[in-house]
Amino acid sequence: MLPVFGHMNPDTDAVASALVYANFLSRTGTPAQAYRLGELNFETPYVLQAAGVEIPPLLPELSAGTPVALVDHNEPQQSVGNLGELDVTRVVDHHRLGNLQTAAVPFLRFEPVGCTATILLKLHREQAVSVEKAGAHLMLSAILSDTLHFRSPTTTAADREAVEFLAPIAGIDDVAAYAMAMFAAKSDLGDTPAEQLLQMDYKEFTFGEGDLAQRWGLGVIETTNPGYVLGRQAELLAAMDQARADQGLNGVLLSVVDILHESNQTLVLSATEQKVLEEVFGIQVTEQRADLGNRISRKKQIVPALEAYFAPTL
Amino acid sequence: MLPVFGHMNPDTDAVASALVYANFLSRTGTPAQAYRLGELNFETPYVLQAAGVEIPPLLPELSAGTPVALVDHNEPQQSVGNLGELDVTRVVDHHRLGNLQTAAVPFLRFEPVGCTATILLKLHREQAVSVEKAGAHLMLSAILSDTLHFRSPTTTAADREAVEFLAPIAGIDDVAAYAMAMFAAKSDLGDTPAEQLLQMDYKEFTFGEGDLAQRWGLGVIETTNPGYVLGRQAELLAAMDQARADQGLNGVLLSVVDILHESNQTLVLSATEQKVLEEVFGIQVTEQRADLGNRISRKKQIVPALEAYFAPTL
Repeated sequence: MLPVFGHMNPDTDAVASALVYANFLSRTGTPAQAYRLGELNFETPYVLQAAGVEIPPLLPELSAGTPVALVDHNEPQQSVGNLGELDVTRVVDHHRLGNLQTAAVPFLRFEPVGCTATILLKLHREQAVSVEKAGAHLMLSAILSDTLHFRSPTTTAADREAVEFLAPIAGIDDVAAYAMAMFAAKSDLGDTPAEQLLQMDYKEFTFGEGDLAQRWGLGVIETTNPGYVLGRQAELLAAMDQARADQGLNGVLLSVVDILHESNQTLVLSATEQKVLEEVFGIQVTEQRADLGNRISRKKQIVPALEAYFAPTL
Repeated sequence: MLPVFGHMNPDTDAVASALVYANFLSRTGTPAQAYRLGELNFETPYVLQAAGVEIPPLLPELSAGTPVALVDHNEPQQSVGNLGELDVTRVVDHHRLGNLQTAAVPFLRFEPVGCTATILLKLHREQAVSVEKAGAHLMLSAILSDTLHFRSPTTTAADREAVEFLAPIAGIDDVAAYAMAMFAAKSDLGDTPAEQLLQMDYKEFTFGEGDLAQRWGLGVIETTNPGYVLGRQAELLAAMDQARADQGLNGVLLSVVDILHESNQTLVLSATEQKVLEEVFGIQVTEQRADLGNRISRKKQIVPALEAYFAPTL
C-alpha cells in the first residue's frame, strides 16, 4: 500500500487530497492508503463528517527507501522528517518546486491553480475515472477551503469550474451556505491554547541562500471572527516567541485573515520582523500589528515578497 | 514568446519535444518558440528533414528573470548555464527530479515513460488538441530514438501505444524501416572528430553529497556500427582525458551501445573508473573496455547504479 500524505499542520486540502488521491490510485492499479502528518484544524473534521469519511490515521514511521506519494506540498521542511530517506514516486501539488530530489523518474503533476483537489479532478476526467459522491464532497470542500470560496487571489477559472462540476455529484445545492458553514466550523476556536492556534496552519520557509539564508515560520489563522483571535494577541505573541526559540528561526509572523472581509492583520514578533515587513510592504507596524490589507494569500502575496527581499543580489 | 528547450548536447527527443511543445503551447494560448542548446547529432537532421521542419535556432542569452519552459531535462547542470537566474514556469520530462527550484508555482508533468514525446502526446489528447502531421512525425521519431525502437528497458506500454497512434497521422507505413533509416543516419559518423563524438550524447551527473560528492561525465554513442566507433578507442580515450581535465571531473565513461544487438561496450578512462565499474557491476575491465552486457540505458541501468554506489551510508 503506497502511503499518500499532505503537509505537516494539515489543512482541508492536505487531508482531502490525500484521501482522494489514495482512492484514485487504488482504483487505477496502485493500492494506496491516505495518512495525515498531524492534528486537524477545526474545519477538516466538519468536512470529513459531512462527506461521511473517516479521519485518516497518523503516518507511522516509514523505513528508508519506502515509496511514498505527496500531495499539496513538496518542500522537505514541510513534510515528514525523514523524507530525504524515502522514495518519492508521485507528487500532485500547487506550490512552487523547492529542492526535492527523487531517485527514479517520478509522476509529477503541478499546476498553478488554487487547490490540489482541482488537479485531482483533472486526473479523474483525463483518465475517465468516475468521481464518487464522497470524493466529490472532499474535492469541493478542499477547493472552497483553499480559495476561501474564490476570494483568494490564487483562485483560477479551473477551481470555479471544478466546484461547478462537483457540487451536483456531492449533492450540495447551496455552495455558498456550505462554505459559510465550513468557515464557521473553522472559526469556532473555543479555548484552544495559543500554541495550537499558531501551529494550526503554520509553515516554515527558507529565504535566500548559503550563509545568508534565513528560516522563517509563517502562521495563518483564517477566520470569520478575527476580533476573537486578535483579542488574544499577547498570548499568541508569547507562543510565537517560544516557536522562534524552539526552532531557531530568524523570524516568525502570524497572519489573522478575515475571510469575509478579505483583509489581513499580521502579528509581528520583534523589531526584526517589523523592519522586514515595513521595507517589503511599505507599511507601518504599530503595537506589534501590521495591516497587510487585502494580502490574504501566504503563497501568492507574502512568501514571494519575502523571497525577493532575501534573494541574493545578482 | 516563451522559450522552450531541451538539454545540452541535444538528442532527437530534446529537439523534437521542444518543437512540439512550443507548437502545442502556441496553439493553446501561450505563444512559445523552440530552441536548442547545441549542435545536433546525425540522427536529428534526418528526422527534421523527413518531418519537413526547420532546425530550431540556438538559444540566445536570456536575461535574469526570463520565463522559460524545459523539456526532456530538469537538472541545472544539463541546462543553460544561467538556469538558476531564469524563471522556470513549465517542465515536461521523463527523468528523475534533481534540485530544481522555481519562484512561482510551475506546470510540471513528469512520468516514468520512455520519451518526453509520449507525455506530450498525452497532453494533446487530454486537452483535445489536434495532432498535426509534422508534429506526429516528430513525436514518433523521438519515441523510436529514445527507446531504440522499443529495445531499451525504459520502454513502456504508453510509448508503444503512442507510436501506434502517431504512425498513420505521420504517414509512416513501415515503422521498423523508418527506425532503421534513423539509426543508420545516426551511425554515419564519417570523420567526426573524437571530441565531438564524445560530446554528442554526453551528460554530467553529481553522485553522493557534500564533501564526498563526485562529478562524473557519462557519454553514450548509440550506433548500428559499434566496430567503427570501438576502432577509434585510442582517440576517444584521449578526448575523455581532456574532458576530465577541462571540466574537473572525478570520472568519465563512454558507452558504445550496439542498437541492434542491445549490448554495451564502455570505454574506461583510468584505474579510478575501472575500480568503480568492477565493484558496481561485478565485471572485469580489460584493455580499458568494460562489457556491460545488455545495460543499454544510461538513465535506468548506469546512473542509478552509480548513484547507489556513491550514496552516503545512512
